[in-house]
Amino acid sequence: MRTQVGIIGAGPAGLLLSRLLALQGIDSVVLENRSREYVEARVRAGILEQNTVDVLTEAGMGDRLHREGLEHRGIHLQYPGVRHQLDFPALCGRRVWVYGQTEVVKDLVAAQLAGGPPLLFDVSDVAVEDVDTDSPRIRFTDADGVARVLECDVVAGTDGFHGPSRAVVAEGGSGQQLWERTYPYAWLGILADAPPATDELIYAWHPDGFALYSMRSPSVSRLYLQVDPSERIEDWSDDRIWEGLATRFALDGWELSTGRITEKSILPMRSFVSAPMRRGRLFLAGDAAHIVPPTGAKGLNLAVADVVLLSRALVRLLQDKETDLADAYSDTALRRVWRATHFSWWMTSMLHTSGDAFDAQLQLSQLRRVCSSEAAARELAENYTGLPY
Amino acid sequence: MRTQVGIIGAGPAGLLLSRLLALQGIDSVVLENRSREYVEARVRAGILEQNTVDVLTEAGMGDRLHREGLEHRGIHLQYPGVRHQLDFPALCGRRVWVYGQTEVVKDLVAAQLAGGPPLLFDVSDVAVEDVDTDSPRIRFTDADGVARVLECDVVAGTDGFHGPSRAVVAEGGSGQQLWERTYPYAWLGILADAPPATDELIYAWHPDGFALYSMRSPSVSRLYLQVDPSERIEDWSDDRIWEGLATRFALDGWELSTGRITEKSILPMRSFVSAPMRRGRLFLAGDAAHIVPPTGAKGLNLAVADVVLLSRALVRLLQDKETDLADAYSDTALRRVWRATHFSWWMTSMLHTSGDAFDAQLQLSQLRRVCSSEAAARELAENYTGLPY
Repeated sequence: MRTQVGIIGAGPAGLLLSRLLALQGIDSVVLENRSREYVEARVRAGILEQNTVDVLTEAGMGDRLHREGLEHRGIHLQYPGVRHQLDFPALCGRRVWVYGQTEVVKDLVAAQLAGGPPLLFDVSDVAVEDVDTDSPRIRFTDADGVARVLECDVVAGTDGFHGPSRAVVAEGGSGQQLWERTYPYAWLGILADAPPATDELIYAWHPDGFALYSMRSPSVSRLYLQVDPSERIEDWSDDRIWEGLATRFALDGWELSTGRITEKSILPMRSFVSAPMRRGRLFLAGDAAHIVPPTGAKGLNLAVADVVLLSRALVRLLQDKETDLADAYSDTALRRVWRATHFSWWMTSMLHTSGDAFDAQLQLSQLRRVCSSEAAARELAENYTGLPY
Repeated sequence: MRTQVGIIGAGPAGLLLSRLLALQGIDSVVLENRSREYVEARVRAGILEQNTVDVLTEAGMGDRLHREGLEHRGIHLQYPGVRHQLDFPALCGRRVWVYGQTEVVKDLVAAQLAGGPPLLFDVSDVAVEDVDTDSPRIRFTDADGVARVLECDVVAGTDGFHGPSRAVVAEGGSGQQLWERTYPYAWLGILADAPPATDELIYAWHPDGFALYSMRSPSVSRLYLQVDPSERIEDWSDDRIWEGLATRFALDGWELSTGRITEKSILPMRSFVSAPMRRGRLFLAGDAAHIVPPTGAKGLNLAVADVVLLSRALVRLLQDKETDLADAYSDTALRRVWRATHFSWWMTSMLHTSGDAFDAQLQLSQLRRVCSSEAAARELAENYTGLPY
């Protein structure tokens, strides 16, 4: 087997990269160690920034997104007694869309299987070789248990935090740098068959802890509660969850809408950045190189930004035989990664209670400022809706 | 002895309050436990925000300030390889002045002694009594060792962090709340007979630690180095200080100017807020109620903001017999206190190295953002030059 770009991982990053390359006439093969069913059912992020929607639309992936996605013109920031809307178009001329990562993946998988580049599920034993040459290869075992070799010009590691690609980069001669921060909070997240009681997301600061009111559709709510990372989901009955949400979102004249909880889990929160994002002919994109806490809704969007940059670099490398964009890829991508990492850290730090009384007053002062100053509100809006590429 | 407002402490807050009240026809007496020489020699802050200059000018204290003060249209932010000017008038239509707190105090003392309200230095044993009645009094021993009583309508506690007033408020029935944060850094500050090698302040982030290039006049530089709070000034020779400064401010084509060091000391950094800022007829203003770290140049300016608010409240209370502004004083003042406390914490956190590699990358991303985004730059500029009263 041979292709121009071997892509490891069929998450949104790998699938979108394959599609963007195909639109430029570059072949690829996507290898995924999970099943199609698993990949299409993973519940992940749900907020697409303007850039991401533009990229997906230009890639022909906009039909269902524009039909079923919910366009949001802002978010609400809440602290006791106050719920304030930030009007993104007025602040920065941009907006966001609510459309689950799961749906993005389904659209990309469907397009790939309908005449797109090869997409192999259920592969195993993936190993990347010879990335320091111009002919790297990927060894793997296919779904039928047959050992295969994929000869490539370039390998893209879009295999997430637990994939094998990052370790191959780390073994390169240029030295790997890692930065990590584990936050002393977790999110208890639920999906509920309940029509959202809000038109836009609510980010709520409360002495008991942060809460986020999000949604997936006009009939499905996605809600989160800040909890201690040591909490066990078994200790959170549906009633306890609804009570916690009602307390943290409480506002005169407003009521939470409840419904059947169809999914609940506890998500740890951390920041992670690995550099460089390239070794020879192996390029990393998305969670393989960086993780952000979910508070700023940046994870999926950052993966898309990587992929846009990488697709341009690979077109230039493989069609024009010019190495400039490929050589610049890691540094260019990492600048945006650190911007998003900082923004996600900032949103997280502003909204999650630490138990420290001084921190709480700093948070409330910051929230009052964002809700009263055009400059502070615009700084949040520009970062949240996504800085232009 | 009797007066309308007994003022404890002849720092800039107490002296300015006395003057603003006198301009409105309200009598006061200022009591100070130090000598005039001591008060006029204390080296303190040196940046006056637009509001402070306006207030001093309107109070007739602007002559020497406008003659000798240095008007600054911005500051420089520096990180390795980059020195970027923030243009305050372009960002927010405001500016700042370099004019030492020492000079402000000298001007106010001179005006006070030239026909202003009584100002008594070298008093001792100051005690405040009956603040829950309409006739509070201050007992003290005067410079000649004579026990005196000052009968008042109102007492203003402008006696700094170590003065007696805050404790009297704390003993009131309304309960006192304290917030405190000690930072793991200190500033080693010097005064040097060296013409500043910069037109405006330089706030420099460096892997070795923060450095600040400031000045007091066209021939006197005021420079600071971040050091560990456990450092002893004896271990810092002049040569070692100049070397540290040269390293942290290094920039191609630019050179530090050196000269005789005339003063050096190590300053701890902390945030402190005490609420409420009032008990009955006793009102706190300035450092008696709050301390900010010096990074945002907010300490003196915040004291002036308190005093402007308090003078209006006292005019209304004593002339119009209306309690509304006096009743609102503490809450109104504390909103600005927390804004300045947050801003000072933010500047401090952005610029001081903690030794943590993740923190360093967050700081550099924030600095790059402030140096490239109008919204982020304006947010800094508005806070630095002072939010309108």
